[in-house]
Amino acid sequence: MDSSLENLIRRLGRLPGLGPRSARRAVLFLLKNRDRLMLPLAQELHDIARTVRPCVDCGNLDTADLCHICRDDRRDKSRICVVEDVGDLWAMERAAVFRGRYHVLGGTLSALDGRGPDDLAIDRLLRRAQAGEVVEIILALSATVDGQTTAHYIAEKLAPSNLDVTRLAHGVPVGGELDYLDDGTLAQALKARAKMN
Amino acid sequence: MDSSLENLIRRLGRLPGLGPRSARRAVLFLLKNRDRLMLPLAQELHDIARTVRPCVDCGNLDTADLCHICRDDRRDKSRICVVEDVGDLWAMERAAVFRGRYHVLGGTLSALDGRGPDDLAIDRLLRRAQAGEVVEIILALSATVDGQTTAHYIAEKLAPSNLDVTRLAHGVPVGGELDYLDDGTLAQALKARAKMN
Repeated sequence: MDSSLENLIRRLGRLPGLGPRSARRAVLFLLKNRDRLMLPLAQELHDIARTVRPCVDCGNLDTADLCHICRDDRRDKSRICVVEDVGDLWAMERAAVFRGRYHVLGGTLSALDGRGPDDLAIDRLLRRAQAGEVVEIILALSATVDGQTTAHYIAEKLAPSNLDVTRLAHGVPVGGELDYLDDGTLAQALKARAKMN
Repeated sequence: MDSSLENLIRRLGRLPGLGPRSARRAVLFLLKNRDRLMLPLAQELHDIARTVRPCVDCGNLDTADLCHICRDDRRDKSRICVVEDVGDLWAMERAAVFRGRYHVLGGTLSALDGRGPDDLAIDRLLRRAQAGEVVEIILALSATVDGQTTAHYIAEKLAPSNLDVTRLAHGVPVGGELDYLDDGTLAQALKARAKMN
């Protein structure tokens, strides 16, 4: 194979979700759609690598200093939803159930990976929380050990303030079958059972 | 989400093997690796879209008019392996069992898709076959109805010549379990059974 094609396939194959086989198929598909797909994709990758940056307020990715969510005056300034990374923010936005603002931590505390409070955007969150208009901080972190450790750390830091600090509910995923659920989730779902009448 | 990011995700999601979810993950991964991955990828996509073209002899993709296989004097000029597309050529090369040259048809005959002989590089194959130095044409086409129709069509066209026209063997895939094989393959494997002593 031509070495430039080999390089392209190797580079594409590094993307999550693409292995060598699908990278080869993708390259052939791109070459069959040069004007409609390959050249525009090259241009977009170049432009976005140069222009997209974290929002100075919340850490969301955007082409402006202040992201379109922080710019949007119709969004509730009194509630901040804390997420680990931008992918989680996108997931919340897709669900379209939250009309407040976000705060992207940039990960979780992790003893194993040597990530401490200074490696996350926690100080900036505490400053935002003191801005006066904020009434609730929703910790939408992973239900993992690291995620929950991080949530407790932040909740403790926020304790002196008069803010509501909440976390997402644990329980049976909508559409989930009990048979496939892990014991931890089942235990949480039973503990937090809700009255039906 | 920023509209430029949305566009990039939509475009990446059109690649075979990438859906919307993996396209989103890929974009976040690219943004975390701008200098090492995103910008070089943009450059390679642009350059390759502009430079890679079909080999004038065999149809393989290369940055030169004559591909590196056709340029390679150590390759056997007397055998031409006919494949449907460049992906199949790459698969043969990965197996590293064929040291001759190739001919890329650009698909198969297909009544359903309205592809006739003029839509494939069959005329060019017949001209190459008459070049004198060729002794064997190996039809490495898919074992599908369209693939086999195409193989028979080409074999007939080549009948007047004195060339050996062969096809790949059908049978049990190496590592394959009989239990999972279709009846057609089993029938072919039994018919073409080989002596062991």
